[in-house]
Amino acid sequence: MRHDQRSNDQLRPITFTRNFTRHAEGSVLIEFGDTRVLCTASIEHGVPRFLKGTGQGWITAEYGMLPRSTHTRNDREAARGKQTGRTQEIQRLIGRSLRSMVDLKKMGENTITIDCDVLQADGGTRTAAITGSAVALVDALGVLMTQKKLTADPLKGLVAAISVGMYKGEALLDLCYEEDSKCETDLNVVMTQSGEFIEIQGTAETKPFSREQCNQMLALAEDGIKDLILLQQKALGW
Amino acid sequence: MRHDQRSNDQLRPITFTRNFTRHAEGSVLIEFGDTRVLCTASIEHGVPRFLKGTGQGWITAEYGMLPRSTHTRNDREAARGKQTGRTQEIQRLIGRSLRSMVDLKKMGENTITIDCDVLQADGGTRTAAITGSAVALVDALGVLMTQKKLTADPLKGLVAAISVGMYKGEALLDLCYEEDSKCETDLNVVMTQSGEFIEIQGTAETKPFSREQCNQMLALAEDGIKDLILLQQKALGW
Amino acid sequence: MRHDQRSNDQLRPITFTRNFTRHAEGSVLIEFGDTRVLCTASIEHGVPRFLKGTGQGWITAEYGMLPRSTHTRNDREAARGKQTGRTQEIQRLIGRSLRSMVDLKKMGENTITIDCDVLQADGGTRTAAITGSAVALVDALGVLMTQKKLTADPLKGLVAAISVGMYKGEALLDLCYEEDSKCETDLNVVMTQSGEFIEIQGTAETKPFSREQCNQMLALAEDGIKDLILLQQKALGW
Amino acid sequence: MRHDQRSNDQLRPITFTRNFTRHAEGSVLIEFGDTRVLCTASIEHGVPRFLKGTGQGWITAEYGMLPRSTHTRNDREAARGKQTGRTQEIQRLIGRSLRSMVDLKKMGENTITIDCDVLQADGGTRTAAITGSAVALVDALGVLMTQKKLTADPLKGLVAAISVGMYKGEALLDLCYEEDSKCETDLNVVMTQSGEFIEIQGTAETKPFSREQCNQMLALAEDGIKDLILLQQKALGW
Amino acid sequence: MRHDQRSNDQLRPITFTRNFTRHAEGSVLIEFGDTRVLCTASIEHGVPRFLKGTGQGWITAEYGMLPRSTHTRNDREAARGKQTGRTQEIQRLIGRSLRSMVDLKKMGENTITIDCDVLQADGGTRTAAITGSAVALVDALGVLMTQKKLTADPLKGLVAAISVGMYKGEALLDLCYEEDSKCETDLNVVMTQSGEFIEIQGTAETKPFSREQCNQMLALAEDGIKDLILLQQKALGW
Amino acid sequence: MRHDQRSNDQLRPITFTRNFTRHAEGSVLIEFGDTRVLCTASIEHGVPRFLKGTGQGWITAEYGMLPRSTHTRNDREAARGKQTGRTQEIQRLIGRSLRSMVDLKKMGENTITIDCDVLQADGGTRTAAITGSAVALVDALGVLMTQKKLTADPLKGLVAAISVGMYKGEALLDLCYEEDSKCETDLNVVMTQSGEFIEIQGTAETKPFSREQCNQMLALAEDGIKDLILLQQKALGW
Repeated sequence: MRHDQRSNDQLRPITFTRNFTRHAEGSVLIEFGDTRVLCTASIEHGVPRFLKGTGQGWITAEYGMLPRSTHTRNDREAARGKQTGRTQEIQRLIGRSLRSMVDLKKMGENTITIDCDVLQADGGTRTAAITGSAVALVDALGVLMTQKKLTADPLKGLVAAISVGMYKGEALLDLCYEEDSKCETDLNVVMTQSGEFIEIQGTAETKPFSREQCNQMLALAEDGIKDLILLQQKALGW
Repeated sequence: MRHDQRSNDQLRPITFTRNFTRHAEGSVLIEFGDTRVLCTASIEHGVPRFLKGTGQGWITAEYGMLPRSTHTRNDREAARGKQTGRTQEIQRLIGRSLRSMVDLKKMGENTITIDCDVLQADGGTRTAAITGSAVALVDALGVLMTQKKLTADPLKGLVAAISVGMYKGEALLDLCYEEDSKCETDLNVVMTQSGEFIEIQGTAETKPFSREQCNQMLALAEDGIKDLILLQQKALGW
Repeated sequence: MRHDQRSNDQLRPITFTRNFTRHAEGSVLIEFGDTRVLCTASIEHGVPRFLKGTGQGWITAEYGMLPRSTHTRNDREAARGKQTGRTQEIQRLIGRSLRSMVDLKKMGENTITIDCDVLQADGGTRTAAITGSAVALVDALGVLMTQKKLTADPLKGLVAAISVGMYKGEALLDLCYEEDSKCETDLNVVMTQSGEFIEIQGTAETKPFSREQCNQMLALAEDGIKDLILLQQKALGW
Repeated sequence: MRHDQRSNDQLRPITFTRNFTRHAEGSVLIEFGDTRVLCTASIEHGVPRFLKGTGQGWITAEYGMLPRSTHTRNDREAARGKQTGRTQEIQRLIGRSLRSMVDLKKMGENTITIDCDVLQADGGTRTAAITGSAVALVDALGVLMTQKKLTADPLKGLVAAISVGMYKGEALLDLCYEEDSKCETDLNVVMTQSGEFIEIQGTAETKPFSREQCNQMLALAEDGIKDLILLQQKALGW
Repeated sequence: MRHDQRSNDQLRPITFTRNFTRHAEGSVLIEFGDTRVLCTASIEHGVPRFLKGTGQGWITAEYGMLPRSTHTRNDREAARGKQTGRTQEIQRLIGRSLRSMVDLKKMGENTITIDCDVLQADGGTRTAAITGSAVALVDALGVLMTQKKLTADPLKGLVAAISVGMYKGEALLDLCYEEDSKCETDLNVVMTQSGEFIEIQGTAETKPFSREQCNQMLALAEDGIKDLILLQQKALGW
Repeated sequence: MRHDQRSNDQLRPITFTRNFTRHAEGSVLIEFGDTRVLCTASIEHGVPRFLKGTGQGWITAEYGMLPRSTHTRNDREAARGKQTGRTQEIQRLIGRSLRSMVDLKKMGENTITIDCDVLQADGGTRTAAITGSAVALVDALGVLMTQKKLTADPLKGLVAAISVGMYKGEALLDLCYEEDSKCETDLNVVMTQSGEFIEIQGTAETKPFSREQCNQMLALAEDGIKDLILLQQKALGW
C-alpha cells in the first residue's frame, strides 16, 4: 500500500479548473493531488523569424516554479538571471508535446505561448503541466476559431502525460514527491488520444532497469493516460 | 460613479486566503478585486553576509508577475535573463515596508524571504503584495515562535498599503488597472497599524499635482489603510 | 546647528557649470556642496520602437556612480554585468521628471538621452542629477531649435529636486551623506517651476513619520526648490 | 538500403583514439562515421559544496559543439553568453549516464569533469559523446588508481549509447544527420555492460509511435550497444 | 640549448592539415609543436549592420580554448556565460590580422567568420591561430571564386605570426608554454608576405626591455615569419 | 603642420590635477589636450584568492568611458550588461603597466584598484589613463606609507605612455582623435622612468608598416615619454 493509500496503478485525485485567470485565451489550473500548475495559453499574432512568410503557426512553452512551491525555497530564476537546465529541459518537452496536438499549417501565422507555472509542487509537475496545458491549448484554439481567424480546425487530438517508476521492484503510477525521490527508475510518458507515444523519457536513478520493467512501466502509463484523457474530455465538456 | 460602481473612497472587495499553499511557513493569497497575488514567507536559517555575527535577523522580498497575469503577455523575466527596473523597484519597496513591522534584533540570525507572485493583475499589485505579505509574515513569525526559535516576539505591528490617484480632478481610492492607466497622478502609501507613514510615493503621470491634492490623496489613503488593517486582523483571527 | 554650520532650511552651495564637456548637446556639472554630478544631454534621431511613426519624441535617462565617487569603493556596474536596483530606480525617476518638462509631441521623432554620472558623492545625488539635467536638457532643446529641427518650442518649464529629512524630530533641507545616513525619514521631492509636484518619495528609515511631519518636510522642500529654480534660471542667463 | 549502404541494423564505422590530447587524465577521440567528438576526463581534487565532507566523489559533464562542426555555422555559445537548452539537456544526460558507471562512494572527494566537444557533427553526437567518454572516464579512474588516491576500484562497468529511429516505418540503427532530420521518431538509449537501461529518450518528430515500434527500436538499440561495448573493451585492451 | 633541443632561432615542427573537418569552406588544423588549433573559415551571405549597402565584405574571428586543452582545466566560457578579456583580446587581434590580407571592397556583401579553437595548448596559440587561419581564409576565398560569387580576387597576400621572447637575456623564437611562462618579455609579431608589420605586441613580463632587445626580437620574428609563409605556400600548393 | 599647429614631435598641453575628488587615496585628473581622464586609486585590504597567504599585494585597473565622452554617444556598458572587448583590452594594459612600477612583495596583502574613467575623449585615452594613474598610484602608496602599513617603499619608479602614428608617411607624436582615425599605423608605447619598454602595441590600420617606420615611431615615443615623466615628477613635487 502506498503512503497515501493508493494502489500501484491508481492516479492521484485530478482536477481541472478552466478559466482560472481571466486575461489568457486559455487558463487551466491542473491539480494532480498536491501538485498544482497554472497553465495559460496566450495568442500572439506573428510567428518566430524562421516561420515568417510560411503561413504556418507555432506553439511554444515556458515553465517555471514559484520559489516556494517546493519543500524548501529555491532561488528565483529571474533574480539569478538564468533558467536552470532542468527548467529548459522541461519547457522543451512541453512545447514538443503540445505541438503534436495541432496541425501547425492550419494555424495561420499565429503563435500560442503556453506558460506553465507551478504554484505547489509534489512530484509530477512536468506531466501535470502537459496534461493541463493541453486543455488550455484547446481553449485558445477555440478563441481563434470563434474570432474567425482560422479557416479549418487545426486540432488533431489531445495529449496527456504521466510519470511511472520502479520502487522496490514494483511499478507505481503517478509518483508523488516522496515516491519520486526514492524510486529506482523514473519514466515520463506522453501519449496521444489514440494511444500512441509522443515522448518516453526513462532515467535510472539508483539502479538500471530491465526490458521487462520497461514494459511494465509503459503498460501502467498507457492505462493512466487513457484515464487522464477521459478527464480532459470531461473538463472540456466533450 | 466609478465604472465598477464604487464610490471614490471605496476599496474593492478584499479577500485574504491563508495557507493557500502548504510548504511555506506563511502563504496568503490576497485579492483586491481582480488583482490576485500569492504571498509566501519562507524561513531560512542564517543571514546575509553583512549581518553575520550580529545576532540580528533579516527580511527581504522578491516580486514577479506571471507572464500572462496581465492583459497582454509580458516576457518571462527568467527567460530574458533579468528583472526589469519596475520589478526591482517594487521588491525593494515591499522589503522596506515589511522590515518596518519587525524588530530585527529580536529575530535571531534568521532570514524571512517574502515572495510576491502576481497570478492576475488589475492594478495595485504592489499595494496588494504588501498588504498580503504582512499577514504571511505574521504567520511565519508565529512558526518561529512555536518552534521556540525566538525568545521574544519581534512583531511591532501590522502595515498595509493602498494606491490613490487623481482622476479628472477627483481623488480616488484603490485604483483598478483602467483607472490607473488614465489617472493624472498615482500615489502609493504604506502605513503602520498606528497610523504613521512608512512610504509615500507619488508620481504625476500626465499632470503635476498641488499640495492641496496631495493632502486629499493622503487623507483618502489613511482611511483605506485603516480598513485594510481591520481586515488583516480579522484574517489573522485577532 | 548642522555640522557644516547650515541652518535647517539652508541649501548647500549650489554650482552649475554649463558646457563642462564639449561633445554633448547639453553638458552641466552640478555641485550640491561636495556632491558633483556630470549631466549630459545627447540628441539622437529616431525614437524607441513603441513611438515609431507617432511624430513624437522621447527623453530617457541613465545614471551611474564612478566606483570611487563614494567613501569606500563600489563595484563597477559594467564589470559586474548589471545595474543595481537602486541605479535603475534612480534613472527611472530622473527620466520621468525630465519628461514632465517637455511637450513630447512637439519634439519630433528625436530622442534625448540624459546621462547622469556621479563624480563625487556626498548625499543627494539623485536630486542633484535632476536639477542639473534640467539645465542640460534646456541646452539640448536649444540646439534642436537652432538647427531648425523643431517647429515649436517643446519646453514647458523647469523642474528641480531636493531631499529633506527628519533628524531628531526636526526637518532638515538638502541632506549631506552624514545626515542622510542618520536621519529617521528621507523624502525626495521633484517640483515644477510653477510650484506643483512631479514626484514625492518619502521613506521611513528608522522610524515612521506622521502626517504633520510630512507637511513640515514638504514645506521645506517647496522653499528649497524655488531657490534651485532661481539658480537654474540664472545659470541659463534667463 | 540506406544512403551509405548500411543495413538497418548496422553501426557506422566506430573508432576510438585514446590519448588524443596529452594534458587530460583521459582523452578519447570517438568517431561514429563522420561524427567526431573529443572526450576528455579531468581530475580535480575536491567536490561540489553539496558533497563536502561526505567522502564521496562526483562526476559531471559539459558538452559543446564547435561553431562550424555543423553544416551551417552556429553561434558560439561563449560569445552569446549562454548555453542553449539543447546543450544543457545533453550535458545533463551525459553526466547522469557516466555517474551510473561508478560507485561514487569509492571515489574519495575527487571530481572528474568530462568535456565532450564536437569537432564534426553528422548525427548522434550525444550518443557518441557518452560512448567515448566512458572510455576516457576509465582512463582517468586508472590514473587515480595508479596514483594510489583510491583504496578500491570504483568502476562498476561500462555504458554505451546509440540512437535508433523509425524511418518510413522501418527501424534504423545509428542515425546519421540526414536520416535523423527525416525520421519520424528518434530514440536514444543508454545501456550498461550487463544489458540494462540507464536512459531511454524517445521523441516523436513527425508522427507518434506505437508500443510495437518502441519494442522494435529498443531491440535494435540493445544489439548496437552490445557491439559498442565490445569495441570499448577492445580500445581499452581488456 | 632549449629544453626541446631547438636553437634560439628555430621554429617548432609546423604542420598544416587542410580539410581537417568537412563542413567549413576552409578548415585547417595547424600544429606548432604540441600546440594544435583548429581554424575554420565559414562563408555567410550578408554583412554586419554598419556595412549594409556598401557592397563591401567583412572578416571576423572568434577564438576559444577547449576546457582541457591546457595543463589544468579551465572553466568553459559558455558555461560561465562570458568570454574572458584574454579571449576577446586574442580574437580581435586575429580578426584585424586577417582583414589585412584581403581587399574587403572586392568581397561583395559576404562575411567570412574565422573560428580558432585550441584543441591542445603549449604556448603560442594566438600566433598559430593567425598562421593557420590565413590558409583557411585562402581556401574559403577560393570557394567564393569557384562559385563565381566574386568578380575579382580579393586576396592581397598571406600573413603569418610568431612569438619571440627574451629569456635570461637571450632572444628566443617561437616560445613553448614552459618558455613563455618564464621569459622576461613576450613579443607577438604579425607580418605580411612582403615583410611588413601588421601587429607588434610586446609585453614586459618580469623585466622591462631595451630598444636593443626589441630590435633583436623583431629580427628573429622576421626570419621566423618568412619561414612560416613558405610553409603556408607549400601547404596551399603554390 | 598639424591641424592644431603642433609640430610632429610635440605633445598636446598636458595637465595633472591631483586630489580632483576627495574620497580616493589617489585622485588625478589628467588632460592630454581635450582628452580628460579621471584616475583614482583605491586601497582595499586583502588580495585576490590566488595571492592569499603570500604576503604580496596586487594592483588592478578598470577603465570606462562616460557614454557621452565621445563625439556620438556610446551605449553605457553597465546598461548593456557587459564591457566591450576594447574596454577589457585597455584595462588589462593599464593594470600590467602599473604593476611594473611596484615591487608587489613589499606591498603587504593590500590591493590597489585603479579606476580610469574618461570624462572627455579626443584620442589617446589609454595612454593618458596610464600616465595619470601612475601619479594616483604614487599618492595611494604614500597613504599606505603614512599609515605605517608598509615597512619598505614598494615604488620602483614611474611609467608613462604615449601614442605615435604614421600619417601620410610621417611619424606623429600624441595623436588626437582626428589624427588617430586617419593614420595608417597606431603605436602605443609604455616606458619606465629609466627608459625601458613595458609595452609596445603597434597596429597597422590601413597599411602595413616597415621596420624603419617602427624605429622612427619608437624614437618619437621615447622622447615624448621622457617629457611626460618630467611632468609627472613636477606634479608630484619631486
